[in-house]
Amino acid sequence: MSERIGFIGLGDLGSPMAINLLESGYALTVYNRTQIKTELLQQRGATVVSAPIEVIESGGVIISVLWDAEVVESVVTSPGFLERLGSGGVHISMCTCLPAAAKRLAELHARHGCTYVEAPVFGRHEAAVARKLWMPVAGSQSAKDRIRPLLVAMGAQGVFDFGEEIGAATMVKIVGNFLLISATRFLTEALRLIDVTGGDMQAVVDMLTQTLFPSPIYQSYGNRIAERQPTFSQSNIPKKDLGLFEAIAQQHQVASPMAKTILSLL
Amino acid sequence: MSERIGFIGLGDLGSPMAINLLESGYALTVYNRTQIKTELLQQRGATVVSAPIEVIESGGVIISVLWDAEVVESVVTSPGFLERLGSGGVHISMCTCLPAAAKRLAELHARHGCTYVEAPVFGRHEAAVARKLWMPVAGSQSAKDRIRPLLVAMGAQGVFDFGEEIGAATMVKIVGNFLLISATRFLTEALRLIDVTGGDMQAVVDMLTQTLFPSPIYQSYGNRIAERQPTFSQSNIPKKDLGLFEAIAQQHQVASPMAKTILSLL
Repeated sequence: MSERIGFIGLGDLGSPMAINLLESGYALTVYNRTQIKTELLQQRGATVVSAPIEVIESGGVIISVLWDAEVVESVVTSPGFLERLGSGGVHISMCTCLPAAAKRLAELHARHGCTYVEAPVFGRHEAAVARKLWMPVAGSQSAKDRIRPLLVAMGAQGVFDFGEEIGAATMVKIVGNFLLISATRFLTEALRLIDVTGGDMQAVVDMLTQTLFPSPIYQSYGNRIAERQPTFSQSNIPKKDLGLFEAIAQQHQVASPMAKTILSLL
Repeated sequence: MSERIGFIGLGDLGSPMAINLLESGYALTVYNRTQIKTELLQQRGATVVSAPIEVIESGGVIISVLWDAEVVESVVTSPGFLERLGSGGVHISMCTCLPAAAKRLAELHARHGCTYVEAPVFGRHEAAVARKLWMPVAGSQSAKDRIRPLLVAMGAQGVFDFGEEIGAATMVKIVGNFLLISATRFLTEALRLIDVTGGDMQAVVDMLTQTLFPSPIYQSYGNRIAERQPTFSQSNIPKKDLGLFEAIAQQHQVASPMAKTILSLL
């Protein structure tokens, strides 16, 4: 594991994934827009640099965990960035964006002889810390073969290959998040009715998650609702990802009444 | 198991549950509105009668698997019915109806010294045959203690007790069906987007049901959608049960945007 990896973006998710890499024995060069978040990584042995381009070893692997395609594009089009990544270089991008935007980013990389692989992530901060992330991945087969151990080292408990075409893994992420957000909404609406009719929300959650819906997601959301706690951190992620879902539906002229209803509630 | 049980309603669900009872060693007297459906039961040793009241042994247990509260009421208010069921008699009603209607039925029984227990059923015909039903139950504790073995013999793989107040188990059924119907709707909307963007629906179903949603419901609905088969039999059940959900929400002045959206699609 002598390979040095470049890592850009130490947010809620990026930070624990970078720490996982260090703990798995990888050497890491990290960049984050706000310096304060790099301290934790520096303490654990990462090299901290002051510009994204400096994380790159030519022909090496870089990982970015950034908010959207616009941010990724602004990073990779900074002067000299893709030239430095160069031939044989691989960029693992973990952002959720429109598949068309991911495709454009992939073409941009290809023009410089390097490879863009998409590996958006299912799981929040706690799941990253616990190495319980799920990752759909798409891109060139040889690049995927090369970076698969890195995905596991970052905290993936499972990696699912959706082929070589960029956009396929991003679609899975968008659709998966739509299902997750939907589940919280339906559970909220369902349990509220139990509550107002004098029922025991926790008993209902216990039955449903032992029978029809034995999934950790329903358990965790259901328990939070029964305990009258919010099901989502106050993040913009649901709104952003549902917006992507809705934009794709409109582009393909597909009806999306459920997504529209949930968007109107956010 | 010498007790003779009365059974009313041999529909898609009632019929396999009655057969399960026979196979568990219970003696059965059955009634169904259309005679043809009783033949299968007769062949297996059930006594077939030509009026609902004739299934009753005074002080015994009767089971009804009927469409709604109106049908149940028309049966139990037929002349002499509750008088014959009488003191010590128990009626296990498995219909899905408004909790308020179930409460009225319970009061009607109480006035004749007999007991109404509600045990609506999760599961379709195939699940009944395979003894894989889930049953929430509510009603008098002593009656529940008496009839619990019958619920298991009918095909319950799990019985969940929601207390003594009639309506509580019915609410669980209504809310659970709302979640089931919702799941088919948002899976349909999600997978359609995968399909129109050229993705592999089955691969997405496989990933999601191994990760975020490891539930048989998501698997079976997801597989059917991926195979381009309808997710629901052409029954009126989704519309009926969502209508109950919506009626209760309106009665309690609770917002139900998701239920409204799905109802508008049915």
